[in-house]
This record gives sequence, C-alpha cells and structure tokens, in this order.
Amino acid sequence: MSSSKSSGASDHTVVTEGVISPATWNLVESKFSDFARETLTKLIRFVHDECMPAEELYHAQVGIGADRWTTIPPIIEELKTRAKALGLWNLFLSKAHYPKHGVPLTNLEYGIMAEVMGRAGHFASEATNCAAPDTGNMEVLAKYGNEEQQKTWLLPLLNGEIRSAFAMTERYVASSDATNIRTDIRQEGNDIVINGHKWWISGAGDPRCAVHLLMGKSDAKNENRYAQQSMVIIPANTPGVKVVRPMQVFGYDDAPEGHCEVLYENVRVPLKNLILGWGRGFEIIQGRLGPGRIHHCMRSIGAAERALELMLRRVTDPRKKTFGKQLSEHGTIVADIARSRMEIDGARLLVLSAANMIDSVGAKGALRDIAYAKVVVPNMALGVVDRSMQAHGAEGICQDIPLASAYAQLRTLRYADGPDEVHIQQQGKIELRRAPALWKRQKELEARTAKLFEKSGTPRPHL
Amino acid sequence: MSSSKSSGASDHTVVTEGVISPATWNLVESKFSDFARETLTKLIRFVHDECMPAEELYHAQVGIGADRWTTIPPIIEELKTRAKALGLWNLFLSKAHYPKHGVPLTNLEYGIMAEVMGRAGHFASEATNCAAPDTGNMEVLAKYGNEEQQKTWLLPLLNGEIRSAFAMTERYVASSDATNIRTDIRQEGNDIVINGHKWWISGAGDPRCAVHLLMGKSDAKNENRYAQQSMVIIPANTPGVKVVRPMQVFGYDDAPEGHCEVLYENVRVPLKNLILGWGRGFEIIQGRLGPGRIHHCMRSIGAAERALELMLRRVTDPRKKTFGKQLSEHGTIVADIARSRMEIDGARLLVLSAANMIDSVGAKGALRDIAYAKVVVPNMALGVVDRSMQAHGAEGICQDIPLASAYAQLRTLRYADGPDEVHIQQQGKIELRRAPALWKRQKELEARTAKLFEKSGTPRPHL
Amino acid sequence: MSSSKSSGASDHTVVTEGVISPATWNLVESKFSDFARETLTKLIRFVHDECMPAEELYHAQVGIGADRWTTIPPIIEELKTRAKALGLWNLFLSKAHYPKHGVPLTNLEYGIMAEVMGRAGHFASEATNCAAPDTGNMEVLAKYGNEEQQKTWLLPLLNGEIRSAFAMTERYVASSDATNIRTDIRQEGNDIVINGHKWWISGAGDPRCAVHLLMGKSDAKNENRYAQQSMVIIPANTPGVKVVRPMQVFGYDDAPEGHCEVLYENVRVPLKNLILGWGRGFEIIQGRLGPGRIHHCMRSIGAAERALELMLRRVTDPRKKTFGKQLSEHGTIVADIARSRMEIDGARLLVLSAANMIDSVGAKGALRDIAYAKVVVPNMALGVVDRSMQAHGAEGICQDIPLASAYAQLRTLRYADGPDEVHIQQQGKIELRRAPALWKRQKELEARTAKLFEKSGTPRPHL
Amino acid sequence: MSSSKSSGASDHTVVTEGVISPATWNLVESKFSDFARETLTKLIRFVHDECMPAEELYHAQVGIGADRWTTIPPIIEELKTRAKALGLWNLFLSKAHYPKHGVPLTNLEYGIMAEVMGRAGHFASEATNCAAPDTGNMEVLAKYGNEEQQKTWLLPLLNGEIRSAFAMTERYVASSDATNIRTDIRQEGNDIVINGHKWWISGAGDPRCAVHLLMGKSDAKNENRYAQQSMVIIPANTPGVKVVRPMQVFGYDDAPEGHCEVLYENVRVPLKNLILGWGRGFEIIQGRLGPGRIHHCMRSIGAAERALELMLRRVTDPRKKTFGKQLSEHGTIVADIARSRMEIDGARLLVLSAANMIDSVGAKGALRDIAYAKVVVPNMALGVVDRSMQAHGAEGICQDIPLASAYAQLRTLRYADGPDEVHIQQQGKIELRRAPALWKRQKELEARTAKLFEKSGTPRPHL
Repeated sequence: MSSSKSSGASDHTVVTEGVISPATWNLVESKFSDFARETLTKLIRFVHDECMPAEELYHAQVGIGADRWTTIPPIIEELKTRAKALGLWNLFLSKAHYPKHGVPLTNLEYGIMAEVMGRAGHFASEATNCAAPDTGNMEVLAKYGNEEQQKTWLLPLLNGEIRSAFAMTERYVASSDATNIRTDIRQEGNDIVINGHKWWISGAGDPRCAVHLLMGKSDAKNENRYAQQSMVIIPANTPGVKVVRPMQVFGYDDAPEGHCEVLYENVRVPLKNLILGWGRGFEIIQGRLGPGRIHHCMRSIGAAERALELMLRRVTDPRKKTFGKQLSEHGTIVADIARSRMEIDGARLLVLSAANMIDSVGAKGALRDIAYAKVVVPNMALGVVDRSMQAHGAEGICQDIPLASAYAQLRTLRYADGPDEVHIQQQGKIELRRAPALWKRQKELEARTAKLFEKSGTPRPHL
Repeated sequence: MSSSKSSGASDHTVVTEGVISPATWNLVESKFSDFARETLTKLIRFVHDECMPAEELYHAQVGIGADRWTTIPPIIEELKTRAKALGLWNLFLSKAHYPKHGVPLTNLEYGIMAEVMGRAGHFASEATNCAAPDTGNMEVLAKYGNEEQQKTWLLPLLNGEIRSAFAMTERYVASSDATNIRTDIRQEGNDIVINGHKWWISGAGDPRCAVHLLMGKSDAKNENRYAQQSMVIIPANTPGVKVVRPMQVFGYDDAPEGHCEVLYENVRVPLKNLILGWGRGFEIIQGRLGPGRIHHCMRSIGAAERALELMLRRVTDPRKKTFGKQLSEHGTIVADIARSRMEIDGARLLVLSAANMIDSVGAKGALRDIAYAKVVVPNMALGVVDRSMQAHGAEGICQDIPLASAYAQLRTLRYADGPDEVHIQQQGKIELRRAPALWKRQKELEARTAKLFEKSGTPRPHL
Repeated sequence: MSSSKSSGASDHTVVTEGVISPATWNLVESKFSDFARETLTKLIRFVHDECMPAEELYHAQVGIGADRWTTIPPIIEELKTRAKALGLWNLFLSKAHYPKHGVPLTNLEYGIMAEVMGRAGHFASEATNCAAPDTGNMEVLAKYGNEEQQKTWLLPLLNGEIRSAFAMTERYVASSDATNIRTDIRQEGNDIVINGHKWWISGAGDPRCAVHLLMGKSDAKNENRYAQQSMVIIPANTPGVKVVRPMQVFGYDDAPEGHCEVLYENVRVPLKNLILGWGRGFEIIQGRLGPGRIHHCMRSIGAAERALELMLRRVTDPRKKTFGKQLSEHGTIVADIARSRMEIDGARLLVLSAANMIDSVGAKGALRDIAYAKVVVPNMALGVVDRSMQAHGAEGICQDIPLASAYAQLRTLRYADGPDEVHIQQQGKIELRRAPALWKRQKELEARTAKLFEKSGTPRPHL
Repeated sequence: MSSSKSSGASDHTVVTEGVISPATWNLVESKFSDFARETLTKLIRFVHDECMPAEELYHAQVGIGADRWTTIPPIIEELKTRAKALGLWNLFLSKAHYPKHGVPLTNLEYGIMAEVMGRAGHFASEATNCAAPDTGNMEVLAKYGNEEQQKTWLLPLLNGEIRSAFAMTERYVASSDATNIRTDIRQEGNDIVINGHKWWISGAGDPRCAVHLLMGKSDAKNENRYAQQSMVIIPANTPGVKVVRPMQVFGYDDAPEGHCEVLYENVRVPLKNLILGWGRGFEIIQGRLGPGRIHHCMRSIGAAERALELMLRRVTDPRKKTFGKQLSEHGTIVADIARSRMEIDGARLLVLSAANMIDSVGAKGALRDIAYAKVVVPNMALGVVDRSMQAHGAEGICQDIPLASAYAQLRTLRYADGPDEVHIQQQGKIELRRAPALWKRQKELEARTAKLFEKSGTPRPHL
C-alpha cells in the first residue's frame, strides 16, 4: 500500500467515508499528493456542511417570480467568499497546464473533487468558482488570451467577480458539427462586426454575466473547413446583443443563469477582442474538450451517488409503509439499490482511468477513454436517478427533492458535446482498426496449428 | 374479413391510415360498430385538423406570466363548442354502464379514440370533455351520486361548463395504500367538517374548477379498514379550502390546471354532500380504476406515435446534416425507429386485448390484463419518446417540441395508481397460483411416462 | 362475443385453459371456425397427454451412442400413427393455398396450434407431420412440383413415410444473401450435374431422409441476379452426396436428424428432377417465407410458455428452499415471472395480428408484420427461457430439463432467415417512407396555426 | 508515472498491446513488481504462441467417440512440461498466503494473468496447472492439510501429475445453501464411511483424477449448523465411488474432465483422510471463496476479449459481404463493437479494484467488491459473446468457433457459487446499512438549513 497511508490511517477514513468506495480509493490513493488529500478533505466538509444545507435558501432567494432573472442570491456570494478563504477556489485550473493561475492538482485528483461538488448539483461548483461555462472560458483566456484580454476578462473571472457565456450552438442548423456554424464575423476597419442567431447560451441570462466568447465564421469560403472560424470576445452589454428568451430543459429555465436564445445583430467590438488570430477558432475549441468532459462525468457520478443516498433514506422512511411493509423490504427495491451501487462504482473507475490517462499521456492520447466515459456515465446516472425517483413516487419528480432536476440536467449530457451515437460510431470504428493485426495474428496461428498437427501425427478433421 | 369492409373498402383507408397499423386494425375491425367507425373518422380529422394546429395558440394564450393561473385560453373553449357540435363529446362515458348520459362505445372502440386524442397531449381530451380528473369524477357522480348531486355537479361537468378536482393523495404518508389516508371527516349536526392536507390535486388551480371530490376518514377506528373512508363533495370556493402551491412535474406546473398542494382547514359542507353514504369511499374509488387505466394507456400510445412521427420528420430534415450525412442514414437511428414501431404495435395490442376483455367479462375479470397494460405501456412510451428526444438533440428537451413535456407526463404513470413494482409483484403472485395445477399435471405426466417405458421395453436411464 | 360462445361456454374453458391468456382468446375467438376449435381441442389433449409424456422415452430410444444416427425411435412412429387417426395431420398445409392436399385452417388458427406443438419442442411437430424442413419442402412440391414429382416425393412426405432436406446454406460465403450461392448446377445431356459444398442441412443425417431439395446456380452469369438459381430434386442415396459431419448447436447435434455439412460431388440426376424450370429457384424460395416464419414464431411462444411453466413449478418446489425461503417468496423471482408473462402475451398478439394479416391480405401485404414478429419473438423467448434456467440453477442447463436445448434452438432463430439486424434495418427504412407525408401534414398544420393566430389576435411568441 | 516505466518504456508496449486497454494498464502498472511484469510478458507469449495454436489439436486428440473419456490428449501434457520450464506454473498460489509452495504474485497481478489465460478457454489454465477444481483443492490442502496429506495429494497436484475433484453439490436439494447438504459421513472404528449422491462434480470423469475432496454431514444434529459438516479425502478408485454419467452444459459434456453425477455408496477411507478435524468443513470451504471468484471473473474477461477479437475479424472478412456491404459497415455492428469494448473495460476495472482490495485488506474486507465483480462480469461477458455469435451467424454457434462453448461456460457462472439474485440481495441489504448514518446526516443538514434561513432573514417557503 502507498506510503501516504502510513502517515495517518485515520485520515483515510476521514477523507472517503461514504464518498467513494474503499476499493476505488485503495486503487488510486497512491496517486494522490498530500496537497490533494488535504484539499479533498476540506472540500468534502465544505460541500456537506456548508453547501448542501444552503441549497434550499439559494432557491428561496432566487424565488419563482419574474425578478429571479435579476436576482443574485446573497448566499452564493457568501459561500464564494468562504470557499476562497478555505483555498477551495479554481480547483479546475491545472497548474501543469496553466502555471500562472493554476492549482497543483492532476485530473485524477480533481476528478474525485468534481464528484464531491456534483453532489450539490451546480451549486458547489459555482461556490468554488468551478462552474461551466466559466471554467472553459477561463481556460481559453488563460491559454490563448493576450495580456490585455487576460487582465480585462480573465482576472475578474478568476476572482469570481463576473460570469461569462460561451456562444457556439446555433438555431436551425446541426451545430454539433462546428463546420455548420453560420454566424458571420467580419472586420470593418478596426472593428469586428458580428451577426448571428445562437441558442442554448448558458449563463447569458445572469445579471453577473459580463462577457460572451463567441464562435463564428470569419472566412466561410476557406477551403480548409477548419480555418473558417474565429473566436471573439463580446462584452455582454454591447449594443445588438439581444437575449430573446430562456430555453427550458424539461420545464426548468435555470434562472438566473438560463440557457438563452441570443441574437447578435450588427454587434460591433474592437479588433483587439479577437482571440489568438483570424481563423483559429476551431483550434481553440479543440483544446476545450478533454478534461472538461471528465469533470462533467465526475459531477454526474456525484449526482448519482446523491440520488442513491436519497433512495436509501426514502425506502427506510418509517412513514412510508404500504400494506404493512417498508419499501426497503421489497426484493426488487433491494436489487435496484445493489444495481445502482455496482453501476456507479464501475462507471467511476472508467472515468478515473481516463483521467489518469490524461495525466499520463495527455488528452489526445486519452480520447478513446474520454469518449467511453462520456457515453457510459450519463446513461448510468440517468438510470440511478430514475430508480430513486421511482422509489420516491410523486415526491421524486417535484421541486421538493433534487431528482427530477438532476435527471433533466443529466439528460442533456447524452447529446451535448456530440450525441452518444456519434461517439459510439467513432469508437467502434477505432476499435475496428485492430482488425488487420488480428488477421495477421490469425494467419500465424493457423501456420503454427498446421505444424503442430504435422508433428503430432494426429489426423486433422475435415473442417 | 368483416362484412363492414364490403360496404366501403375506401372508408378503411380513411379511418386508419397513419394512425394504427393495418395488422392491428384488421384484427379488431370486426368489433367496431358503424357508429364507432364514423365517430373515429370524425375524431381523427378533428384532432389532426383542428386540435393539433391550435396547440401553439393555446400555450401562447396561457402565457408564461403569473396570470396564467387565472387565464382561460379562449381557443380551448372554441374547440369545446366545435367538438360538441361534431358529436365528439363525453366519448369516455360508456352507455353500457351509464345509460342515461353515456355514449354507445365499447372500451375497445373508445380505446382507439383515446389514442387519437393522446396525440395532442392533454389538449384534445379537454376539447372533447374527456380529460382527467373530470372523467373519473363524472363517472363517480353518474354511478353513485343522487339526483340532486347529479343536477348540481354532474350536469355542468357533462356540459363542460365547470371543471373539478379529485382530492385523494396526501402529503407525508404513502397514500397509494388508501388505508393510510389521514384526512379527517366528521359530522357536526347537519354539516360535514373536513380537515386534511392533500397534494397533487390535479385541476385545483384552474379558475373553472368548481368542485372537489374528497376522500377522507370518517371512521378511522372501524375494524374493517375498507369501511373507514367516505367521499364528500366540496365546492371549490368553500371557506377553508386553501390552494398552497402548484407541484411541479419535472419543471412543469401545468398551469392553469396545476397539480396543487391543498389544505382543508375546518371546511364545512352540508350533509347532503356525502356521496353514497358513510364508510363507502373505498367502494367508490374501486369503481374508478379499470377503464380509466386503459384510457391512460391508449393516450400514452398516442403520445408515443406522435413522438415517432416527430422523429421521422426530424431525421429527414435536410437542414440537420452532420458530417455530410442525414440522421436517417445512420444505422442506429434506423434501428431505433424500427424498434419503436415494434414496441408501439405490441403494446397497443396488449391494451386492446385488455379493453376487449373488459367489454367481454367486465373490469374485474380483466384486472390481470389491465395491470399488464398499465406496466408495459408507460415504460414503452418513455423509451420511444426518449429516442425521439435524442434524435432531436437540444431541441428535443425544450419548450418548442412536445417531447420533454410528454416524457414528464408519461413518467408519472409509472407510479400513479400504484407503482410498476406493486403491480408486477401482484401479477407475479397471481401467475404463481397456477403452480399447484402444474404440479398435478406433472404427476400425471410422470405416470404416463412410466407406463410408456414399461410398455416399450426400453430400459429407463438412471435419472 | 362470437356466436360460437353461446353454443357452449364450457368448450371455451376446455380449449384454452392454461394455454393462451383469456384476453387473447377473447380477441381472436370469433375468427375461429368450428373445425378449428375442435381440432385445437384435440391437439391440446394429444400434445399434453400423449406427446409430452413420451419425450423422455424418445430420447432414451435415440440414446447417446454412435448408433443414434441410424436409429428411428419407435415411439415417434407410433405417435404419427395416432395423430393421423385423430385427424391431427399436415395441419400446416392450408387448404386455401393447397386445395388438393390442404387442411381448412387459416394462418391465425394454425398459429395457435403451432404454439401448442411448440410446447413439446420439435417432437409434437414431427408427430403431426408438421416439422421443418419437410413442411417447406411439401409446400414447394405442392405448389411448384409437376405431377410425377408430386407422386414420387410429395405423397410419401404427406404420408410421413419419408423425410427430406433443404440444401441451401453454403459454407465460406454469406448465403443469407442468396445471390452469393456458389453451388454449380449444369445440364449434361438429359442429366443435371451438381457440385457444391453446403452445411447446416437439417435432416440430412436422418435414416428416413430420402430426398434433398437443392438450390444452386445454373446460370451464374445471367445479368438478372434473381434468375441465376435453379432448384433440383436429389434422391438422398445418389452417388456423390456425402454427409461430412453434423454441425453442433451449442454442443447439440440433434441426432438422428442432424444439421449436416454435405458435399455434392458430381451428383447426377435426371433432367425431370428440375423444379418449375431453369432459373426459377429464387421465385420458389420467395414463396417459402411468410407463413413459415409465423409458425416458427408460434412454436417459439410455445417454448416460452413451457419454460415459464417449468419455472413456476421449480420455484414452488418444497425441496428447493435456501436459507429457509422458497424461491417463489423472493421479490425478484416474482418480478421475473410477471415480466415473462407480459412479454409472452404481448409477443403472441403481435404474431397473431401478423397471421391474421396474411389471412386478410396475403403474405406480401403482411411482410412488415411478419418481420416484426420474427425479430420480437425469439428475443422474447430467449429472455423467458433464460430466466427459467436461472431459477433452476445447474439443473436448468443440463439434459434433464428441456431449457438449455430450447435456448440453443431459439438462439438460431435470431440469424436464420436473415439476422435480426437486417430485418430491423429493412423495417426502419420502410417506416422512414412515411416521412414525406408527415412533412406535408406538418406544412398544412403550420398554415392552420398561422391562420388561428391571425384570427385570434393573440401575439405570436418569438420562435 | 511509475518509476518502473523509466526502466524501459518499450517493455510497456510488449506487455500489454492488444491485451488490456492502455488506460487500465496505466492505472495499475505501478502496483506490478518486476517479477510480475516479466511473468506476464512470458505468459502472453506462451498463451498466444503456444496454447491457442494447439486448441484444435487438443480437440482432435480428444475426439468425438466414446473413448474420449479415457483419452489424455498428449498435447496438453507437452504444454504442461513447457509451462513448467518457463516458470509459468501454479501462478494462482499466492506466496503471501502459502509461503511454502506459493508464487510471489498479488491478486491484482495474477488477475491480469488469469485474463490472459482465459483467452484460451480452460486450456491455458490447465497447461499452467491453474485450472479448477485443482486450484481450490490445492489451496485447501496447502492451508488445512497435514504433512502426510500434503505429501500424498498436494505434491502430485502441484506437480501436475494427478488431477482432482471437489464433491459438494448434491442432487435433489438446494445445496448452494451448504446447510442443506445430505451426504452422510460417519466414523466406524478407524474408518470413515461415506454415503451420498452428488452431481456436477467437475473432473470426476478424467482418467487422471486420483482424488475427491468431499463435503458431507458428520454431525447433522449439531445445533450449530455450521459445525455439522466435515471434509474427507477420497481416493478416486475407492470401492463404492460410482461415476453415473456426465452432466451436460447445454450440449457439452466437457470430456475428458466432465461434470459428473457421482454416487458414494458405503465408501470407506481411513480416519487420517479427514481434513482439519470433525465439524470443520464449513470453515474450510469459506476459505475457498474470495480470490477464486476474482480468477473466474478475470478468465471470463479474457473470454470476452477473445469474443470481441473474433467479432472484429469476422465483420471484416471480405468473403462475408451481404448485399454488397461488409458487416463492419453497418452502424449497429459498429455500435455493438463499441459497446462491447466499453463494457469489458468497465468490468475489468471493477474486478481489478476488488483484487487490489483483497491485496490491501484481505478477502473478508473485500467481500462487497468481490460480490459485485461476480455479478457484473459473467453478465457482461455473456452479452459480448452473444453479439459476437450474432455477427458470425450459424458459424458462431457451432463447434468451429469457440463462442457457443464459451457462452455455455459463462452461463454457469451466473448461478455457480450462489446465483446473481442472492448476491444482489445481500449487497443491497449491506448498502441499506448506510441508511441510519444518512438519516443522521440529514437531521444535521436540516438544522443547519434552519439556521441559515434565520440568519439570512429570507422567508422560508411553505414546504
């Protein structure tokens, strides 16, 4: 076992009890630095003791009226202050890739932390400044932004003073294939002029949203389809930026952030707002993909764990007997619980192995593993949440228990960043590339078999 | 083939094209009366040509503001007038059971019609006065109400002038087991006084909701647990009736009807508002179950058919190519379509056989078949809707396409009226009752086998 | 209800008790002739009382030694005599299509009978001369054979005096696409000379097998790929016909029939052994498909019903308690039973609707429904048999209980006559043909919606 | 990354290419000793280059005649000699637990090796003297046998000179609950006399089988149900040991080992053949369980990997085009491949985490993880093998391709050592033990929430 165990077996218990299965922890523990262990311990306490008890207050402060689009719930700002003080801040930004602003955590280490955050829905991620789409935007600015862009936009984002939107998905086209994007970006003198129709722009409804990073076509006729796009920084209050309406996810509008339909009508920004250079938009978004998917997966596993915990509570609730029996005494309920446990543990290992692969060989070498994790986890988590909802009956699908909202959120992950079907086809084709080597091996094997028969003198049956 | 075919093969096409599979229609057609055939033809046209084009307007008239709880969308009232004129009114109420007010349709016949209505969600059912919870309430009043109760409440309901609520489910207890109900009903002089805490009271938020039928305990200490309950008619505007809040199904509040949390605080109604008599509540709700479940199932099949049609449209949308290929060219999409088709057709046959069984031997003799239909159909429909959502990507889960809302609605059917798990256990145990007969048959078989061996002279192998 | 009911409600019970669900019977009963009802009643008794008790003796008479390839178990011949006497003979051959030799049963009627036979595996089918491949071969000879061919081969087959093989599948090619067939058929003077390498030729190992119907290419270069094949009658004892080995299905060799690898080396038969004419082989096999698939499906449903009955017996066996509990007291076992029941009933209805469709509009018009039945049923039956095996533990997979052998047999149906995947793709594509009509309807609907908004004055929301 | 990488990155490639996914290897590599790495490399070569090419010869040498029960195929003995020379011998026996005879491999390390062996079915395990039931018997003798017992039976087993059987399962009772065992063991003077009826005694048919370890009741009336059993060593040639017949798994009899029905009729052995002492049988079998299940799981994963490789070959076979398309061009085939890959990788990680847990805290502390692995893996592997069979068509279920035999073997693992259902119920109940702690946490959380509302002044909504 790892040397870190010897320095304090009791720590071990503190860190992981009721959080990840001992077998998984045993497998990965030796890869955790002391810093990561300490941070994880603090984070678990912060999420369980401070974030989760505050969820109801958060929703009460948002309210259900029309003003929830202009409200900043005070509790979230208080928690942000607290997280910063505890050193639980910007944990997503890896020092290895972002030496200036990053935190010394590997993808494996942060993965476990993302799971812990995922137990409190979107809430703990926001409290620790680890919430999408800000995370991806900060990565883009940290990696590709110039000094002025970083000073103006990255620093306030890193400080949690402003929020941001990422404007990519377009209405009326299949923009999951980025080459289908139609938003027009053109230079006019020292200005950039943008015209486009986007939707599902997360965070665009938030009163704190100060900036959009927008992807569009600056050179639609370029023969190289991957050089047609550029990315531009648009202050949210620029004239011509019109938030049309919030899109709903299964009836939820997720105020105050929202996932908005946004029109960009003759939006004009200075040339210095171009990121990296003309035609480099595709290159920028490629860099966003790998680790972010792992984080999504781990948060989803956190959501699944919480759903299972809610189920365990519900089926043992003494008030909920029917026909003289508690739900936990029904064999099919027990089987659903065991199945959920198995599926969560298996899926987590798959994601952690992908996270570790990124740490070992980089995101490019881990694409296969990331893709599998991306397909497996949301499907698994949806199943677990569905069983928990079912055990809860009517209460399970309403606003009083965070299951239906988790389901809705998880459901989007089956098509966001490419639908399951596309990833499965891609990976199946990659697996098929092994065929020539297998045929070769088979030929060798057949030659050896022929020789063995010859040597043995055993007659070979008619095949 | 049925004689009705000879009278006009072209009718056949009119009636069912694109509505139910020819093989199913061929199987059941001979059981359709001329009246049912004509009504079905009219209904298909009404739903396709008048209801479905009006859905968007309905939602626009409801709006998204706070006043949607006080709004009666004019379009629904116009459609009701129109349906009444067409003779497409109260089709759910079977003349066989309710000779005074009913319509001459069997459960099988109305089943197909319920499917047609189900294509337009809740909307066509309401337009034809065939929407829950009014349907169940009308059945109760028609079957158990006295003349005065019928005059005061049944007639305006039959005319679609008022709407109603059914107050049964309670907060904090597992009220799917009706013996757990805690709402207190007691007589004080010539009054009945009600105190209770209900939720998920559908329709209670509607400005047209004029009356609640409430289930509670009037004799909680009666040794016969099925004689403890009574049912009382409560005018919606009685002092003490407090609508606390609408419950959400996923994120939908289904305004203006709503599924409401309702407090009954010292609600006082005259003694004549008691239905059937003291202690007969259980008897009344038992009568509500059978056919209503079939109708729910058939509407769900309609929802599944619509989801499949939306999918067929979406995957052939020329604007939605990704990487140069239309979705309909992907093998897994094609397989999903075929699977959906198979599953819908199989489930429909199961429901129709149950409906026909009710027509043949009554609801009690069809309980097994109703239970199976109730379990199979929502699960099937959820699968079909989910595949359609997946093919739609982000658009599939938002307010622009009626898929996520259908999913949310269908999801409730997996626990409403008893969760899947309970029905499955009950039916499994009923199937197990065959075991003694099977053991007996096995004994006989073994005796015959022994005799055959003896007669044949073949030595019997060691077993 | 049907008039036949009035003539004797008790008959009803006799006919179907414990055989098909009352709800299904109620739905189809009116389509049964008196002859079919009587025949069904007799058949049920024959299968339950005479065939099933004889199974063990049959296997004992076949034995496990090498001589089982030359043994004709006397019991099967006795049962054939008995079935003939009872009028339970050649029931598969529909009088509607084969007036000279056929029996007046529709596909729907015979479908139910095939299910009854399927309860006793291959055994009852053989006893009633309704076993493949003889059935298909008799259909071919009855439909396409000339008088001499019928006299020489059809009559003894109809009498159950000889058995036959159908030689189509070839080794080393994907012969499920019949155009891939490579067996060479050529005319030499007044002879036909055949050279080919077939396998999976069912029945070729049987000592009673007197004739092969062989499919091969007589005109491989014909531009019309469907005119390259011819079908030839080959007496089994013709020189050059070499049965190489029996193929195993999950370890079973199904002696004495066998599924054999067969070489045809310069096999020479007279020209009169050509069926229908040169180049008409494809036409002949096309005619074999529809009803035969329905019969396979119904026999598979019979196998599933028997598996469920075995499960019901096993889980109530008092000797099989573990940890103080009988298997039937475990919730998941009960759920497995209920699920099996639901799935069987749903699948049966699907097949019966397809059978009825063939009766109504012919096999060609029912292709869609036949294809769905062919995909749904074996998968369903495999699931039911697997659950029953699981409840039996080790006993469930061995030679003492006919479950593993049923599983092996059913498993072949998922690829025989075209794999599931091919049927699913074909049907999905056929379903997709509805898309243009749906687009058209959608356009009309949108026009109506626009008009409704205009008329109502309600402002249309930004969509 | 691990330091061992630095010593030779190229080794890495040699060891794992095409064997386990790089992501998994990266995760566990640091836990592999140099010895384990070398042994694994040698083993992969031995299995691929020597065992797999010899499989066909092995089966040819066994043959299909009656003498296959008396034949020892020379090739297996040659491979055993070779494996011994290579140091690939008795790898299953962990030095940590069996210092005298064991090999210095952890469960994690040997787990990966068991997977490699599993690619060649039972064959490579036997060649390396790592085949059940000998492995379990050697563990019993090494742990509980006295010096004389070890000398007489353990040493020849460790040398691969004899083979053995484990006689536990009984006919007519549910012996998966060991307290149901009925075989009688009694002392008569200095002898032990055994009477019992066992079946599924693997290896009892083998001419090399020299000894049975038998479990029976020596004290059936002991109040402590776990002290009723004893274990006795019975030389296979003792009078009264009657091998009745081989049981078939599906249609396989697995000659020459066999899984036999065995009668013990007044079998008499000397008292010194008692293992450990009277009444200690239960204690002995308890010690057999943990690691053995892990090995079974890993061999099953090897079987799944091989099935996937066969599928990759088959679907790219140029001779197998249908309708002009190769199987690998069909979207659903590609999806099946990707799904198989995902499922294998996820399941392997689950088993490895359990193996590592045994290494860390012992088998007792890893029971949960072992149970999950035992349920997940066979179900996963059956699915993968089934897809591969389906892609192969008829060839996939016959004796020419090792898929149907693998399926049959894997199917037994779903009930052997306790059926899935029992493990799932046990683990579900164990998971439910978390409920009290969750309720406690929930109470604390609610108290914190109340305090937060109070402090914030936000009014708390009616809940």
